[in-house]
Amino acid sequence: MTTAGEQRVPILNKDMTLCISLSGRPANIGTRFHNYLYEELGLNFIYKAFSTDDLAGAIAGVRALGIRGCSVSMPFKEDVMAMVDEIEASAKAIDSVNTIVNTNGRLVASNTDFEAIARLIERHLLDPASTVLVRGSGGMAKAVVAAFREAGFNDLTVLARNEVSGQALADKYGYRFTGADPAPGHEILVNVTPLGMDGAQSEELAFSTQQIDAARTVFDVVAFPSETPLICKARSAGKQIITGAEVIALQAAAQFQKYTGHSLSEEQVLRASEFSLGS
Amino acid sequence: MTTAGEQRVPILNKDMTLCISLSGRPANIGTRFHNYLYEELGLNFIYKAFSTDDLAGAIAGVRALGIRGCSVSMPFKEDVMAMVDEIEASAKAIDSVNTIVNTNGRLVASNTDFEAIARLIERHLLDPASTVLVRGSGGMAKAVVAAFREAGFNDLTVLARNEVSGQALADKYGYRFTGADPAPGHEILVNVTPLGMDGAQSEELAFSTQQIDAARTVFDVVAFPSETPLICKARSAGKQIITGAEVIALQAAAQFQKYTGHSLSEEQVLRASEFSLGS
Repeated sequence: MTTAGEQRVPILNKDMTLCISLSGRPANIGTRFHNYLYEELGLNFIYKAFSTDDLAGAIAGVRALGIRGCSVSMPFKEDVMAMVDEIEASAKAIDSVNTIVNTNGRLVASNTDFEAIARLIERHLLDPASTVLVRGSGGMAKAVVAAFREAGFNDLTVLARNEVSGQALADKYGYRFTGADPAPGHEILVNVTPLGMDGAQSEELAFSTQQIDAARTVFDVVAFPSETPLICKARSAGKQIITGAEVIALQAAAQFQKYTGHSLSEEQVLRASEFSLGS
Repeated sequence: MTTAGEQRVPILNKDMTLCISLSGRPANIGTRFHNYLYEELGLNFIYKAFSTDDLAGAIAGVRALGIRGCSVSMPFKEDVMAMVDEIEASAKAIDSVNTIVNTNGRLVASNTDFEAIARLIERHLLDPASTVLVRGSGGMAKAVVAAFREAGFNDLTVLARNEVSGQALADKYGYRFTGADPAPGHEILVNVTPLGMDGAQSEELAFSTQQIDAARTVFDVVAFPSETPLICKARSAGKQIITGAEVIALQAAAQFQKYTGHSLSEEQVLRASEFSLGS
């Protein structure tokens, strides 16, 4: 039963356009984010998260049922590349797809995480002559490092506890790797580890106070909470800051735009993001 | 945008169970019928109609995405038989599937039209010793003829303008065929043609006044309007009547039960049917 005041969408009809997500462990955030905005904008769309143990079958279903958009998460981001018709530069740059758009059966894949990072580097006028220290070596770190490479940065160091993935990431984009904290002095610091994220390691800082003091810009890709300890410290030290919330907002807006053709305002994205974190 | 008082469902969440329909030309009726009852019963389900030009891909999607139920209409009712894991007797009886239930990736196919007709023969206590005249030779006529055969009726005549399909239908179930109106005298008359349906032929009667007068039971499978001219005439002549609305209600309730496990009351089916005919 439904209760008064609950967020609702119009009763479904046959002409609704379906968008989905595919991931190993679906969360509710995407489903709430997109449906909230469909409702607000009066779009005849629905969105729902799915998991699958047959990625090829799921993509066959996307084609055969005319599912318009498909967000892709772990562990499918690489395997799905062989199943689409076209791979845009954003996905090629990091060998990873997080967005598929189906236009009359033709599937075009892209990576809106990469697009979002690239846009933020541009929007915040980061100088390609700067020295950059990126901490992390996972999928999102790859998007960050590739975006700095594409933006023309030549002096970047990958800092990671995992030597194999860290070295591989640095090598792939022609950068330096270190397994131990380097001396302070990098102008741009980027955290792409879970350090500072809500949960067990929420109090730990990805960079030392000395490193922060020596930097000009601190970019924390961790999005929850939006004010991580690292962001708080950098802000109080008067540094330029870029937050994970900006990444999330940009990538979500990019997916929304690709699926529906609608550009979202920052305020709309913020409101939908807040709603999407409810249960 | 939505308007006050519109029928609505709770905003979608990732855990909703999806049921779909596949047909060449999707109508809105199933989508409205099922979603109306999901809302009323507080079930975390959604239902949406789809079409496809790739039935195998769509069925692969049903499996891979864990779509719970799939209603099947023309032109897919026969081809889909090769794509499921089990075919129940109701679908085997007429070589036609209209319902697929997916239980952990195992697809079981059935035909709730056949089930509904069989149930109505039983419920209205039709006597297997009766003589039966069935007018029509399409897919639903096949369900009717097969159900009479299964119920033990031995004297049945198929009346159809299309000699090829009519003869084939009669032959398949070991009955008689005629291309021209037979003399009055059949005890049970069944109309399975569009005669009497809303539209061009809505005033035409499938059987003559003499045939109706000579009969004991008149069964009109045409469901819209629920009071066809044939049903009205039979009712005023004091005959036992069985309506297409009963068929629709039984088959829809059977599908709903297979997908959700919920048995519907007649009143619920009636209310949802009325809602489903709105726009």
